[in-house]
Amino acid sequence: MRELLEAVADGSLSPAAAEAELKGYVTGEAGRFDAARDQRRGVPEAIFAEGKSVSQVVALAETALETTGRALLTRVSDQQFAALEDYVDETAPNATVHRHSDAVRVTAADYEPPSLEATVGITTGGTVDEAVADEAEAVCLDAGATVDRFDDVGVAALSRMLDQLERFRGADVLIVAAGREGALPTVIAGLVDTPVIGVPVSSGYGYGGDGEAALAGMLQSCTVLSVVNVDAGFVAGAQATLIARAIAAARE
Amino acid sequence: MRELLEAVADGSLSPAAAEAELKGYVTGEAGRFDAARDQRRGVPEAIFAEGKSVSQVVALAETALETTGRALLTRVSDQQFAALEDYVDETAPNATVHRHSDAVRVTAADYEPPSLEATVGITTGGTVDEAVADEAEAVCLDAGATVDRFDDVGVAALSRMLDQLERFRGADVLIVAAGREGALPTVIAGLVDTPVIGVPVSSGYGYGGDGEAALAGMLQSCTVLSVVNVDAGFVAGAQATLIARAIAAARE
Amino acid sequence: MRELLEAVADGSLSPAAAEAELKGYVTGEAGRFDAARDQRRGVPEAIFAEGKSVSQVVALAETALETTGRALLTRVSDQQFAALEDYVDETAPNATVHRHSDAVRVTAADYEPPSLEATVGITTGGTVDEAVADEAEAVCLDAGATVDRFDDVGVAALSRMLDQLERFRGADVLIVAAGREGALPTVIAGLVDTPVIGVPVSSGYGYGGDGEAALAGMLQSCTVLSVVNVDAGFVAGAQATLIARAIAAARE
Amino acid sequence: MRELLEAVADGSLSPAAAEAELKGYVTGEAGRFDAARDQRRGVPEAIFAEGKSVSQVVALAETALETTGRALLTRVSDQQFAALEDYVDETAPNATVHRHSDAVRVTAADYEPPSLEATVGITTGGTVDEAVADEAEAVCLDAGATVDRFDDVGVAALSRMLDQLERFRGADVLIVAAGREGALPTVIAGLVDTPVIGVPVSSGYGYGGDGEAALAGMLQSCTVLSVVNVDAGFVAGAQATLIARAIAAARE
Amino acid sequence: MRELLEAVADGSLSPAAAEAELKGYVTGEAGRFDAARDQRRGVPEAIFAEGKSVSQVVALAETALETTGRALLTRVSDQQFAALEDYVDETAPNATVHRHSDAVRVTAADYEPPSLEATVGITTGGTVDEAVADEAEAVCLDAGATVDRFDDVGVAALSRMLDQLERFRGADVLIVAAGREGALPTVIAGLVDTPVIGVPVSSGYGYGGDGEAALAGMLQSCTVLSVVNVDAGFVAGAQATLIARAIAAARE
Amino acid sequence: MRELLEAVADGSLSPAAAEAELKGYVTGEAGRFDAARDQRRGVPEAIFAEGKSVSQVVALAETALETTGRALLTRVSDQQFAALEDYVDETAPNATVHRHSDAVRVTAADYEPPSLEATVGITTGGTVDEAVADEAEAVCLDAGATVDRFDDVGVAALSRMLDQLERFRGADVLIVAAGREGALPTVIAGLVDTPVIGVPVSSGYGYGGDGEAALAGMLQSCTVLSVVNVDAGFVAGAQATLIARAIAAARE
Amino acid sequence: MRELLEAVADGSLSPAAAEAELKGYVTGEAGRFDAARDQRRGVPEAIFAEGKSVSQVVALAETALETTGRALLTRVSDQQFAALEDYVDETAPNATVHRHSDAVRVTAADYEPPSLEATVGITTGGTVDEAVADEAEAVCLDAGATVDRFDDVGVAALSRMLDQLERFRGADVLIVAAGREGALPTVIAGLVDTPVIGVPVSSGYGYGGDGEAALAGMLQSCTVLSVVNVDAGFVAGAQATLIARAIAAARE
Amino acid sequence: MRELLEAVADGSLSPAAAEAELKGYVTGEAGRFDAARDQRRGVPEAIFAEGKSVSQVVALAETALETTGRALLTRVSDQQFAALEDYVDETAPNATVHRHSDAVRVTAADYEPPSLEATVGITTGGTVDEAVADEAEAVCLDAGATVDRFDDVGVAALSRMLDQLERFRGADVLIVAAGREGALPTVIAGLVDTPVIGVPVSSGYGYGGDGEAALAGMLQSCTVLSVVNVDAGFVAGAQATLIARAIAAARE
Repeated sequence: MRELLEAVADGSLSPAAAEAELKGYVTGEAGRFDAARDQRRGVPEAIFAEGKSVSQVVALAETALETTGRALLTRVSDQQFAALEDYVDETAPNATVHRHSDAVRVTAADYEPPSLEATVGITTGGTVDEAVADEAEAVCLDAGATVDRFDDVGVAALSRMLDQLERFRGADVLIVAAGREGALPTVIAGLVDTPVIGVPVSSGYGYGGDGEAALAGMLQSCTVLSVVNVDAGFVAGAQATLIARAIAAARE
Repeated sequence: MRELLEAVADGSLSPAAAEAELKGYVTGEAGRFDAARDQRRGVPEAIFAEGKSVSQVVALAETALETTGRALLTRVSDQQFAALEDYVDETAPNATVHRHSDAVRVTAADYEPPSLEATVGITTGGTVDEAVADEAEAVCLDAGATVDRFDDVGVAALSRMLDQLERFRGADVLIVAAGREGALPTVIAGLVDTPVIGVPVSSGYGYGGDGEAALAGMLQSCTVLSVVNVDAGFVAGAQATLIARAIAAARE
Repeated sequence: MRELLEAVADGSLSPAAAEAELKGYVTGEAGRFDAARDQRRGVPEAIFAEGKSVSQVVALAETALETTGRALLTRVSDQQFAALEDYVDETAPNATVHRHSDAVRVTAADYEPPSLEATVGITTGGTVDEAVADEAEAVCLDAGATVDRFDDVGVAALSRMLDQLERFRGADVLIVAAGREGALPTVIAGLVDTPVIGVPVSSGYGYGGDGEAALAGMLQSCTVLSVVNVDAGFVAGAQATLIARAIAAARE
Repeated sequence: MRELLEAVADGSLSPAAAEAELKGYVTGEAGRFDAARDQRRGVPEAIFAEGKSVSQVVALAETALETTGRALLTRVSDQQFAALEDYVDETAPNATVHRHSDAVRVTAADYEPPSLEATVGITTGGTVDEAVADEAEAVCLDAGATVDRFDDVGVAALSRMLDQLERFRGADVLIVAAGREGALPTVIAGLVDTPVIGVPVSSGYGYGGDGEAALAGMLQSCTVLSVVNVDAGFVAGAQATLIARAIAAARE
Repeated sequence: MRELLEAVADGSLSPAAAEAELKGYVTGEAGRFDAARDQRRGVPEAIFAEGKSVSQVVALAETALETTGRALLTRVSDQQFAALEDYVDETAPNATVHRHSDAVRVTAADYEPPSLEATVGITTGGTVDEAVADEAEAVCLDAGATVDRFDDVGVAALSRMLDQLERFRGADVLIVAAGREGALPTVIAGLVDTPVIGVPVSSGYGYGGDGEAALAGMLQSCTVLSVVNVDAGFVAGAQATLIARAIAAARE
Repeated sequence: MRELLEAVADGSLSPAAAEAELKGYVTGEAGRFDAARDQRRGVPEAIFAEGKSVSQVVALAETALETTGRALLTRVSDQQFAALEDYVDETAPNATVHRHSDAVRVTAADYEPPSLEATVGITTGGTVDEAVADEAEAVCLDAGATVDRFDDVGVAALSRMLDQLERFRGADVLIVAAGREGALPTVIAGLVDTPVIGVPVSSGYGYGGDGEAALAGMLQSCTVLSVVNVDAGFVAGAQATLIARAIAAARE
Repeated sequence: MRELLEAVADGSLSPAAAEAELKGYVTGEAGRFDAARDQRRGVPEAIFAEGKSVSQVVALAETALETTGRALLTRVSDQQFAALEDYVDETAPNATVHRHSDAVRVTAADYEPPSLEATVGITTGGTVDEAVADEAEAVCLDAGATVDRFDDVGVAALSRMLDQLERFRGADVLIVAAGREGALPTVIAGLVDTPVIGVPVSSGYGYGGDGEAALAGMLQSCTVLSVVNVDAGFVAGAQATLIARAIAAARE
Repeated sequence: MRELLEAVADGSLSPAAAEAELKGYVTGEAGRFDAARDQRRGVPEAIFAEGKSVSQVVALAETALETTGRALLTRVSDQQFAALEDYVDETAPNATVHRHSDAVRVTAADYEPPSLEATVGITTGGTVDEAVADEAEAVCLDAGATVDRFDDVGVAALSRMLDQLERFRGADVLIVAAGREGALPTVIAGLVDTPVIGVPVSSGYGYGGDGEAALAGMLQSCTVLSVVNVDAGFVAGAQATLIARAIAAARE
């Protein structure tokens, strides 16, 4: 404790980082950041940017960087992204910013990324599903998993999917994002012995549109799937990460 | 007209058959029977037995037999079926009664069945879909189409379906009945150039159960399908019959 | 194979067209185009433009033209349309661009359109249903079917519809687009022996609005209909095309 | 007041009837009966029998007879009906009991029924709609209106309906009960200048079943209708009665 | 016929008016106008402006004026209204334009408005319901009924409503528009013997918002109401007009 | 601790009561009973009997009696009630059993009931709402509150409700149970300054039936209400009890 | 009366204030203001600004200030707020304007605020819930209650919530606002003996988004809660105020 | 192949087992059994007994035993279970039958069960969730995983759950079954770094009942969960098994 306070006093530790160490969370103007989540839950707290102001997003990213050496943001608008880049350019020019459609990863220059000896396969039915898959991919990469990604293998042309079968089988866990009728995870899961996480995507129109048919179809699947909410790329990626971590730990 | 009335007078034509000829429909105690539907619509009126009393069902079947030489009934309970058999045994012992799960066809002894030079393929995802497919089959057979039937080819074990591909391609029109997530019509329709009619089946439980996921999935299908309501085997069979009739007529 | 590669080498065949011939699909930046769909499925892959960027739409149209000699696009915005016209003006000034409300057909100068000896009747309840019917019409014309089109025959003034009865009866297959309560396909299908495909249109407000009442009404129809999803003009047109193709083939 | 109490004292007026006169309602064991509703609202309180015990139903009918000279009950089960008949046989053998499917009217021997110079037309799409129409008819007859009833004129065979057009036009107000897609009130209302009240009936299955499609279709109707809830025959009959009363009053 | 054609020839009758007289409807570029609806249905066709282009709206109004001497438009945007005013100013400066929130009535200078000896009461729960009530009022006024209007009598302060009871009782038919929980028509209908038409209004938020609770509440009402769809002021006004016409005719 | 164990040893304390004292909950065969809930939450755990076997219900009641001196059960079937009575007759003949429709209170002979100086008003719209109100009443009585109960004051006859206004105003907190359109809590809450808790009741049929309209209407109420789920009489009673307790405590 | 009119005559009382005194409500151009609501209902009428024009909002605020000395507005847009500030600056520069996210309180310079000896605890799950909680807080402060506010204690990091347990227990009544799965009120209510009012917040996406999961979860809670509609901060605050008033009155 | 046929010929291999080896599936009267599923998918095909006849269930169990040495059945009724026991007693008296509420495992006497070095934790909120958890447990045990089971830890009494935290942390993967508001998986998943699979249970009543609130709440969870459909214990168990297998394989 004394050590910690002295580190704050001499400036080698920010007050936020010290609070994080002591209480697990940091209280800032834009809300509390759960700095201990990675230790406790196995995946770090992500900053859900939608509906937050530009300055709230930047402030939360700042807290995340300060206390955990990285930040993961989802549903980031172009305007929020620009502000984030500006902030990083000004205050941490050596940090790295990765964009995955609407998800963003920022890593401090001195951050040592984790590495998991496990592969997450991520696949999509069509172009429209890619942003959701990108969000899932960002989480897995952030955790140090290897990601094997293959897009546009929807069931309307079955051979496109069957061509990839060996790669599907090679992954430790599979994330399958699909909109419209959402049949892809069912068809794939019938052919492999890997855990499959289905992610319904909010495409489609009319009855069952906005991902409802896909969600219902995945929940009703006649094979074995677990499912996350419509467009919940982050949750799928985090759940796959937890499974990959367990497998990687068992491999050690 | 005179001829018709004389036929009624001498008993060679029943009053019901005469009314049917004159007005197109027959008014009985159990309601009106649309005896002209086959001529006008291309498929005969079927008697929907659910919710009707045993005597209403028998009376309507009697009218149908009298005016069109055959009767097609759907959603017939065991009790209604027994009464129907009794009625036929007593009054028309030479008539034939065919049962297709809950659908029933009765044909008078002197009825000359039509014959269509066209094949309707009917397939199901699993055991639970068979009664609905049977209802569709009854309509097609009643119209004289050839039916090619193959059951239990659901997508959870894709090879069972791929084994049947040539037979699917050989049909002039395909009816695909599937419950749960209802992916089967989509997967088949992506592989054949035949018109496919999807029939959602009211299996499944929880969210999207009772055929909702299957209906939504077929309406959202990323390939080309037309769809009928949940469990609407009759409608699927009748629509396939209309298509088969058009093809058969073009073949003549 | 050797021949094909030599054609690529001497520039008489584009790499995309060669890939299409070899694998059935072409992988471009904007996703995969299923060039073999017409052969396999009987209708070509259409490019669903909604939610795609202008450059993705143009790139996909380019691939479709290169590999199949034509392109069919649906839900094209004004901005996307302008870009498409510019692209065609610059690179293929002899190609033809047809607009059908939000659907667009592009045909290369040397493309020989198919021709089907069959007629698809397309009708609407009111002005608001016309764009959906136009989308269906584009698909049928693309496939070479004859289209007989009559608009604004809604049931609120029944005589407008009864006036057209003979034309309805003359078609080989009928597409009926209707919003609000969607009663038109039911009323027409009760009077003709043609297969009828109902297309619910997302008009209406309050309970059952946005096409829900129309979809439910068509699925519940007391006559024989098959149905596509709300506003799914493309699916209706493609299904009608498959039926028309089967009839035309039988006529040969 | 004094007069009333003396009538109670000498037994020429029951306490219930006296309470009804003084307060408008009567409080019994089975709940309160709103004896003044006919005067205030123009239609008497009906006793909704579903979910009530046999003795509650009989007690409420007794109160209604005592205070208004008649009773109108809806959704009466066979068991409740038998008990009601027994009660009437024992206590008021000269009273009359009319059954209209699940609705029942009881009139005391000395009750002078009202008479309205107005006609309510009541029509149905099919056999399954008749019980609901019967409930509506019971209310209209109870109020003394003339009822013109014609069943089974559904739109699947349009000529059955067009045959009745003059009778539809002859009514002062029309009740149209229809299940499945519920198109009948729309088609009729497009042809007559009479107020039409649509009653959706809980027939149908799958999507839009149990009267949902019919309700939605009537609310979305492209012509002019007002609507009551699914199976609400009583409400339709009572609303038609209020309109018929206003017209009859204007005729005087 | 000859007369009519001569009138067209000498310019005293427009071709549209002649077509209207001969066929009942007029076919223009913006669709068909049902000029005979007033004679057949008792209320004229209204032009639903939402979703139509400015020029379509003006063209339809022109046809209505030409063939029936007046035009009634609903859901008119500010831009559409401005164009309509411009059109009237230029081509028919003596015509009159009345605006009722989003509804508009235009009457030609030489149009003789009908007059009905009957009163429609129109009332609202709060400020937010007034535009819907205005739409209903426009229809009633167009038909020549007397309108008695009283706003803002919602049940949260019951005395505001009870103060108006005598006026409610004085109307021949009542339209009650209410959003949120929609209790107002129930409370009023329990107190008067007039037919009441409930109009749910799309106010409210959260569960049951957008008029759903109001619609459900009116359909479930424990008193007698008939109902139109959410925000369907036109339908309520037209139905009230049909009732008022029947009463006025009986008064003659 | 020692004391407690000695009490167990000498039989003056049951093991269950001892476990309850030590851990707060008791683990039996039929599940855990939260014996400390009353202390922690202010209302005791009630035993929800629906879906439990007769022996589970009796075992849980036994544990509740043993550890808290009373038991409160809801949704008790006739069969479960009979078994409960038998159990009490055999093992605790001096205990008292109170039935409130489907709710049951059992109190040990030596149980000293609490007493709150506060009144809960409980009212219903009609006969069908009474069982739900009885469940609420059981909870309030169990906690020692005074209950002022008045039934059958529904809004269809407003005077029945206005007659009770002073009694409504006299309560400290009001529970209003109503089905169908559920307008009663809104109308009452507009007239009193007491906290009102609305309980929707699962009556009604068609759209908005089974309590949906009532729930939606109460949540949308234009006055101030808080709400519990459909038929949740227990929750309403427990929430009213918590409020009554706070008021009674303040009165001390 | 005479006194009142003389006060109006000599200008010491505005006509609006006089009307409020005489009738309870004031009729202005923007609708009626229920000036007697505070006396009758215990909470003043709030002005729901959403959907109202700037001038309507200002006019209603003016009436509220004139007749009750304060105004409470909810769902105020930035533009409406600016106009309100301008109005106050010009006409009542000594009045005070408090903003609580989208809720606004205005108090006249000479207004003597009430004071309640009771504490309302208000808590939120996360940043996104704060605006709804602010609306609730505005009502409680307006009524003179003490508010104890603590934000961002969501269940994903349980210790953040457990840290506040003593403060939760110190409040007389608790408002808990939570979106997403809405588990927070359940977890808190299981730990305290205070009445808890749950407010679902319209956050979340996909199935159960927009507050639906939170509302459903709170209604299904396995502990004791009463609930208001999604985002209904005003209702929660007003209900808590009524409870706080009752407790404060009992304390006197 | 030859070897296999000889084994059939000499009776050491049943025809069904031979067909299973050759084609992967066995076609019997009760449908096809996917004997290769365990090899291909990692979990064996389970027999869903609901809706199947007693003889179909027995026949499928027979096929499963014959081809895979064991059978796993779900949703088995008492009558089906009795028939299954009779069948086993008669034909395979040394086989073992395990019942887990409605799930049943049968293992042949010579079947060598697999063993996984991994632990699946299974927990429930309350008594009502146990049957669903039992179904999940049956699958895990069938696959040879260690199951750590703890029931009745619902959030209404948080300490019951916190007491088990270390056991939750000790599992490799966690299944959490909960009905009503379904908050339990969220609360647990916030505290452990194990993958958590939520299973909504169809308890609850009113809005969000039958597992809807639980499903929605789990999909909206503010922590990381994947989810299966309502009551889908089998799917949860199978998905947990696939994860446990991957971890166990990595441990080898």
